[in-house]
Amino acid sequence: MVDKEKVLDKSRRSRGKMEIASKVPLKTQEDLSTYYTPGVAYPCLEIKADKAKVYDYTFKSNTIAIVTDGTRILGLGDIGPEAGLPVMEGKAILFKRFGGVDAIPLAINTKDEGEIIKFIQQIEPTFGGINIEDIASPKSFHVVDRLTETLDIPVFHDDQQGTATVILAALINAMKLTGKRLKDVKIVIEGTGSAGVGAIRLLNSIGVKRIYSLDSKGAIYEGRSDLNDVKEEISKMVNPEKKPGTLQDLVVGADVLIGLSGSGKFDRTLISKMNEKPIVFALSNPIPEIGYEEAKAAGAFIIGTGSSALPNQINNLLAFPGIMRGLLDSRARKVNYQILQAAANAIAKGVGGKLSADYIVPSMVDQKIAVKLAANVASAVAIAASKSGVARINLDPKGVKKDTIRLIKRAIKAEKKLTS
Amino acid sequence: MVDKEKVLDKSRRSRGKMEIASKVPLKTQEDLSTYYTPGVAYPCLEIKADKAKVYDYTFKSNTIAIVTDGTRILGLGDIGPEAGLPVMEGKAILFKRFGGVDAIPLAINTKDEGEIIKFIQQIEPTFGGINIEDIASPKSFHVVDRLTETLDIPVFHDDQQGTATVILAALINAMKLTGKRLKDVKIVIEGTGSAGVGAIRLLNSIGVKRIYSLDSKGAIYEGRSDLNDVKEEISKMVNPEKKPGTLQDLVVGADVLIGLSGSGKFDRTLISKMNEKPIVFALSNPIPEIGYEEAKAAGAFIIGTGSSALPNQINNLLAFPGIMRGLLDSRARKVNYQILQAAANAIAKGVGGKLSADYIVPSMVDQKIAVKLAANVASAVAIAASKSGVARINLDPKGVKKDTIRLIKRAIKAEKKLTS
Repeated sequence: MVDKEKVLDKSRRSRGKMEIASKVPLKTQEDLSTYYTPGVAYPCLEIKADKAKVYDYTFKSNTIAIVTDGTRILGLGDIGPEAGLPVMEGKAILFKRFGGVDAIPLAINTKDEGEIIKFIQQIEPTFGGINIEDIASPKSFHVVDRLTETLDIPVFHDDQQGTATVILAALINAMKLTGKRLKDVKIVIEGTGSAGVGAIRLLNSIGVKRIYSLDSKGAIYEGRSDLNDVKEEISKMVNPEKKPGTLQDLVVGADVLIGLSGSGKFDRTLISKMNEKPIVFALSNPIPEIGYEEAKAAGAFIIGTGSSALPNQINNLLAFPGIMRGLLDSRARKVNYQILQAAANAIAKGVGGKLSADYIVPSMVDQKIAVKLAANVASAVAIAASKSGVARINLDPKGVKKDTIRLIKRAIKAEKKLTS
Repeated sequence: MVDKEKVLDKSRRSRGKMEIASKVPLKTQEDLSTYYTPGVAYPCLEIKADKAKVYDYTFKSNTIAIVTDGTRILGLGDIGPEAGLPVMEGKAILFKRFGGVDAIPLAINTKDEGEIIKFIQQIEPTFGGINIEDIASPKSFHVVDRLTETLDIPVFHDDQQGTATVILAALINAMKLTGKRLKDVKIVIEGTGSAGVGAIRLLNSIGVKRIYSLDSKGAIYEGRSDLNDVKEEISKMVNPEKKPGTLQDLVVGADVLIGLSGSGKFDRTLISKMNEKPIVFALSNPIPEIGYEEAKAAGAFIIGTGSSALPNQINNLLAFPGIMRGLLDSRARKVNYQILQAAANAIAKGVGGKLSADYIVPSMVDQKIAVKLAANVASAVAIAASKSGVARINLDPKGVKKDTIRLIKRAIKAEKKLTS
C-alpha cells in the first residue's frame, strides 16, 4: 500500500515529474548557430518546401500530446484540469520509460466537446500523435471518433483502446487454456464507459457474436429507448436476442465475465451460474468487483484484476507504450482495429512458454520483459499500420524492434543519470 | 558562417532538438505506485481542494509554452506552423540551457487572432507562463495585450518585450559612456514591428520624451490617417511635434539611431547628421542596416548589431531566459514595465568593470557570464514582480539566484550526459 504523506512529500520535492532535455549540444557558438539562428532557417525552409519533412527535422516524429479536460480523472471524477495534471505527467513518464515516446501533458480549460476537438486539431502540426486521457464518456467517444476522421495523425484513446487491447490479449491466452474459441464463447461485460465500449468494439471487430453488455439500468439491447448514441452503436454489436435482463440473468452460461463499471459487485452465486472453466476479470480499481481468493473459491478458472500484487494484472502499460511507439515509427495516420488486434496478439505472445491460469498476460515488473514486449508490440503495430494502409512509411519490423529497444534503454539511462 | 548541408545533416540526425526526461525514478513497483496509480490520486486530491497547489505538485511551476502560428518565423515570413517548429524547438532548448526553464513548443494550425487567444486561454491550467513567438504584427500585440488582461499567468512576448529590454540595457550603458541622460536624448527608431513598438513602449514607460519612429511610409505622428491601432497607440508616445518626415529629416540631431525594420539602410550621410557621440544600433539580421566598420568610419561612437561576431551583440538571449526564470520563481501573474525595467538594469550591470564603447552588453559566449547574468536578471525580475504586486510568492533574492544557478547547472549536466 502507498503512504499518503510519503507520496505527497516525494511529489512536492520533485515539483512535477518531468522536464525538457536537449538532444543536441549547445556549448559552442557553432552549436548555437547550427541549432538556433542563423542555421535553423535551413530546416525551416526545407519543411516550408515539403511539409512532410517536419518528421525529419523536428521532434514531431517522436512526440505526442496527452490531452485531458479533467472530467474523468482516474476514479476521481470531474476534478478539473489542474487536479488532473499529476496523472498526465505520470502517464508521460511511463510513455518515455516503457516506449521511448516523448509525451507532453496538455490539461485544458474547456469541457466543451466542440472546443476540445478544435483544440486538438489546432495542435496537429506539432505532434506525431494524440493520446486522449480521462475525458468523460460519451464525450470521449465523440472526440476520438471525430478526430480519427479529420486528423492526419493517430488519435489513441487509452481508456478505451488500450484497455480493450489488453482484455483481448488476456482472452486470447485464456482461450488456449480453456480450449474454447473466442468466436463461440459468451462474454458478459458490466460497464459501458470507455473501457466497456472499447472492449465491445474490438471484440466485435474480430467477429465475437455472443457479447452481452450492461449499464446501470440493465442489459443493453437494440431498441432500448434510453440509449445515448454510443450505447446505441454498441447495442447492434451485443445481445443478439435483443432481450432485457439483469446481470443475474445474463451471466447464466457465460464463459467470460468482465467487470468495468467501477461500482459493480460480483459474488459466488453469480460465478456459480457461469459455464465450465469460468473466466472472471474484475477490473475495477483499486477495489475489484470480487477478490481473487473469493473468485477462486467460487470456481473461477482464470481471474484477472487491475492489481499489480495479484496474478494476471490487466494493465494498460502492457499496451500503450508499444502501440504509440509503433504508430510513431510507421508515422501512422490513424488507429484502426487491425492495429489493436495486432497489438493484442503481440501482448498475448509475450507470455511465451510461461502461459498458465495465473499467467495469461506478461508481468511488467521485470524490466527486461517490459522492453522486449514494447519492441514486439511496436513492431506488430507498425506492420499492421502498413498492411492496413495507414502508415506513411513501411518499415523493416526488425528495425522497429531495435529502435524501440534503443530508445527505451536511452530513457532508462537518462533516468539513472538525472534522478540520482 | 554556417554550412547548409552540415546544418541539415545534424538536424536530421537528431530528429528534433528536445526530448522529455523523467525527474523521478520509475524502477520499482513502489516508484510506479508513488508516481502513477494508485498514489498519484493524493496530489490530484490536494490540487482539487486547493487549485494553487498545482504549483507545488506539478511541472507547471517550471514549465512554459512557446506558442506560434507560424506567421512571422525569423525573417522568413509566413511559412506555417510546421516550418516554424525548428525555431520553437531551438528556443525551447535555449530556455533550458540559459534559464533552467522547461519550455514546450506549440506551433498551431490557426492564424485567427481570436482563436489564438482562446487556444492560449485553454492551456492556462498546464503552464506557469506563455512565451509568444513569431506571430505577425499587429496581431501579436492584440494577442499579448488581451492575454495579459485575461490570464493569471505571465505572457511574455520575446520579439517585443525581450528585444526592448536588451535595447534599454544597452542604452543605459551607452548613456554612461556619452555622459548624456536617457530622458533627454533624441532617439530615432526605424521599424514599427514587434521590436520597434516594444522599444517605444518600454522607453516611454521610463519617461523618454524625444522618441521618433518610422514605418515604410515615414514618420509616425499623432493624427496620421493611415495608422493601425497599435501604431495609433505609440503615436502618442513619439514625435512630440506631431510632424511628418523622412528618416533623413528625423535623424538630424539624433543621439540614438536604431534600425529594426529588416529592410532599412543606414549610410554615412545619415550618421553625419546625428548629434555628437552618435549611438547606432543596426539590428536587422543577418544583414545589418550598416556594417560595423562603415558606421565606425562615419563617426558612430557606439555600434550595436545582432551579430555574435561583432562587439555589442543586442541579443535576446541576454533577457528571455532570466526574465522567464524570475517570472516562474515568483509565480508572477503578469509581465509589466517594472519587471522589464528591472531586467534591463540587471543586464546593464552585467558588464561590470568592463564597460566600454565596444562592451555595453555582456557577451554570452562565456558560459560563466551567462549563468551569472541569468541569476541576476531572474532575481531582479522576482523582486520587481513582488514590488509591483504581481507575484504570488515573495522570495529571498539570494534564493532566486542560487536556484537559477542550480537549475542551469543541472541543464548543462543533463546536456553533457545525454548528448555525449
